[in-house]
Amino acid sequence: MKFSDELIAGINKTWRANHSHPFVQGIGHGTLEPGKFKYYLIQDYLYLIQYAKVYALGIQKASDLSTMTELSNSVNYILAGEMALHRQYAERFGVTAQDFEEAIEAPTTIAYTRYMLAEAQNGSLAHVIAAVLPCAISYAEIGAELAAIPGSLEHPLYGDWIRTYSSDDFAKSVQATVDLMDRLAIDLQGVERDKLKEIFLTTTRFEYLFWDMGNDVVDWPQNLLDAVTETV
Amino acid sequence: MKFSDELIAGINKTWRANHSHPFVQGIGHGTLEPGKFKYYLIQDYLYLIQYAKVYALGIQKASDLSTMTELSNSVNYILAGEMALHRQYAERFGVTAQDFEEAIEAPTTIAYTRYMLAEAQNGSLAHVIAAVLPCAISYAEIGAELAAIPGSLEHPLYGDWIRTYSSDDFAKSVQATVDLMDRLAIDLQGVERDKLKEIFLTTTRFEYLFWDMGNDVVDWPQNLLDAVTETV
Amino acid sequence: MKFSDELIAGINKTWRANHSHPFVQGIGHGTLEPGKFKYYLIQDYLYLIQYAKVYALGIQKASDLSTMTELSNSVNYILAGEMALHRQYAERFGVTAQDFEEAIEAPTTIAYTRYMLAEAQNGSLAHVIAAVLPCAISYAEIGAELAAIPGSLEHPLYGDWIRTYSSDDFAKSVQATVDLMDRLAIDLQGVERDKLKEIFLTTTRFEYLFWDMGNDVVDWPQNLLDAVTETV
Amino acid sequence: MKFSDELIAGINKTWRANHSHPFVQGIGHGTLEPGKFKYYLIQDYLYLIQYAKVYALGIQKASDLSTMTELSNSVNYILAGEMALHRQYAERFGVTAQDFEEAIEAPTTIAYTRYMLAEAQNGSLAHVIAAVLPCAISYAEIGAELAAIPGSLEHPLYGDWIRTYSSDDFAKSVQATVDLMDRLAIDLQGVERDKLKEIFLTTTRFEYLFWDMGNDVVDWPQNLLDAVTETV
Repeated sequence: MKFSDELIAGINKTWRANHSHPFVQGIGHGTLEPGKFKYYLIQDYLYLIQYAKVYALGIQKASDLSTMTELSNSVNYILAGEMALHRQYAERFGVTAQDFEEAIEAPTTIAYTRYMLAEAQNGSLAHVIAAVLPCAISYAEIGAELAAIPGSLEHPLYGDWIRTYSSDDFAKSVQATVDLMDRLAIDLQGVERDKLKEIFLTTTRFEYLFWDMGNDVVDWPQNLLDAVTETV
Repeated sequence: MKFSDELIAGINKTWRANHSHPFVQGIGHGTLEPGKFKYYLIQDYLYLIQYAKVYALGIQKASDLSTMTELSNSVNYILAGEMALHRQYAERFGVTAQDFEEAIEAPTTIAYTRYMLAEAQNGSLAHVIAAVLPCAISYAEIGAELAAIPGSLEHPLYGDWIRTYSSDDFAKSVQATVDLMDRLAIDLQGVERDKLKEIFLTTTRFEYLFWDMGNDVVDWPQNLLDAVTETV
Repeated sequence: MKFSDELIAGINKTWRANHSHPFVQGIGHGTLEPGKFKYYLIQDYLYLIQYAKVYALGIQKASDLSTMTELSNSVNYILAGEMALHRQYAERFGVTAQDFEEAIEAPTTIAYTRYMLAEAQNGSLAHVIAAVLPCAISYAEIGAELAAIPGSLEHPLYGDWIRTYSSDDFAKSVQATVDLMDRLAIDLQGVERDKLKEIFLTTTRFEYLFWDMGNDVVDWPQNLLDAVTETV
Repeated sequence: MKFSDELIAGINKTWRANHSHPFVQGIGHGTLEPGKFKYYLIQDYLYLIQYAKVYALGIQKASDLSTMTELSNSVNYILAGEMALHRQYAERFGVTAQDFEEAIEAPTTIAYTRYMLAEAQNGSLAHVIAAVLPCAISYAEIGAELAAIPGSLEHPLYGDWIRTYSSDDFAKSVQATVDLMDRLAIDLQGVERDKLKEIFLTTTRFEYLFWDMGNDVVDWPQNLLDAVTETV
């Protein structure tokens, strides 16, 4: 069994909790309230900024030129491709460039991204990849599952999102990351693999909290947000 | 106005929200349910492990020997002093050494600590200190305020906790950190100070979420914890 | 006076020592022994791998999307453009792809690159840029000065090298880095600027040692290289 | 064979080159020119500042409390014990506190220490320990070998130095680091162990260059030091 398969097999229930999350299913069936998706989209944009930093850390930790180049392409794709797509796509939800600029990260966005950054920082490239993998794989799986729902790809609001994550291009880029994980795990055993599993489990859980955040529009408590206005 | 005073003055409402938090007041008036405090204590223990790491990062980023030594003493005090005190104190809440070892970090504990670690990592020593400062100062202020509540220091469960954080020793160690912040801010202006204020505001907010976590015994969603048993 | 000008003005003699280094002048006058240039070229290739990592660290430390994208483009350019050029150019010196792969870093290459990485790691983005700046600016200046030597651009071995570093494209990319340095220094005063000057001076000195290394073909002592064969 | 033994066995010639270095033998036979030792002592002092930072990085990367505490004790010992000893011992060579403060790192000191810091940064705790191990083990071995030279321990200048590094206390602290290396290597195979061997070989080589630096009083080239005066 490949290590990447082992990672998922060991946490099957938690893994599938993401796929069946009401927010995810709401996208697939076109029933999700646009206001919730809008909030998610803005937080996901802020998430991507940090996600690119995790990959940048990977460049620093890689030990051969081809892996460095592969990771550099990922950083470039996130910053120049994926985020531009977000800005463009967000227009139909009434999100402006200014909204993106003024948005502040919700606690869950910080929790998820800084966990990845700190683990990436404290470990080797294998830890970096274990941290980003749940997001990559689960989006590809969710994309494929939602695409199979009749009519989902033609939905005026959510069709494009589903198309992006069910595309061959996205699947290919995810597969490259999966392969990298498997290569990096070859000479790691015992506690070394346990640590990678722990990271993989934790970011899988944060995926779930991120869907929760979108679904419940979870922000900082209101009494703490007042202060923001004060400081400006 | 000293920079450290400016930091608090700019976010006064959020700052004071911590002092009046029901969990904090519950400690002071001896009305807090012990089960909630027990949960807090275990998470705080896990928090301290990461907190020590933030200070260790400070050693790495310090540029003179006396600051390095000061921060090294802090790491040592957290690891050898404060955590031993926690273990001993926790006994009266029925928390065993094994409980501490087997505990896993709640999402809020991860959010708060990894935010500090990532900011510390990405910045200079000033960022490290801005990140740890709200915890230090607010515990000293809260300690002093709760100690002023009649009978609070004699409470069989919470008296010791209040004594620790209202002690002269603790106040002195906090003052040293405040002074370091002020020294480090001298040659920083404009956006550089704004960044420190942003970090200080964010960890002040996480202080509040940490009290919330204790008060509501917030853990990972139950359907994600099932998976843990599977993996073991 | 712009901060970037101040950086150079403060260390004028050391700065100019690079431009008049025998190795550099040998390139410009076409008198440099090809064997020395070959050694330099291989070490410079290994240097670029680490140089890309320093820029990757910059992505992690940048606080706005446009700076992150700019630095990501630099990483990509180094890894995909500059290094490919090196490999192609090196062929005329008889350097094969295998030579590059099997080469090990000389002490000076390690000294220079790991100093940049460690300073970048311990500081903010301003420290990252101060570390990479001497290489960028001095290559542009040296390129321009050598290009002015009659016939230098047509030299069969060194003409291409001089053309690359005297090109408008290269000058433009260096200017972008200089501008970034000046923007980042705006809110830094006193000891903060002193620290940037110290980094700038130190990597300027390492530039000189790097030319020395090429000129004297400085490697590890022979009695330490024997051991390499043993370990393989 | 323990992994730590394997590390040395694989690079035996390079390893022994340190023990028989003229500078080292000069200490043991009491024939080393004091001026050379003085230069070495000052650079070693600057080395220890960075060495403490490498250990601090270890605290950050350790994953259990007892290892964190062990490393924190090491940092404390270096900063408070070993460096104080250096300052005191240096007096008999006419080195003042001011000399230490004003000293700047020689290229070799930077090369060695920043290599350790950058490798420690880019890897896990195993990389941190592999980086510091050659200094620790070789000083203990050299201490023991020099102590066996008749009269060496009574030498007015070098006797104390030999006593320190041949002491039981020092041997015990080195053994603890060796044991940690062996524990950390258990679940690492193939390329993972190769990487640790590469780090161990490289810092062993830097040990040699450091003795060279002392013996030849190697500083920055004179034409680069002029500039220092300019900037002050």
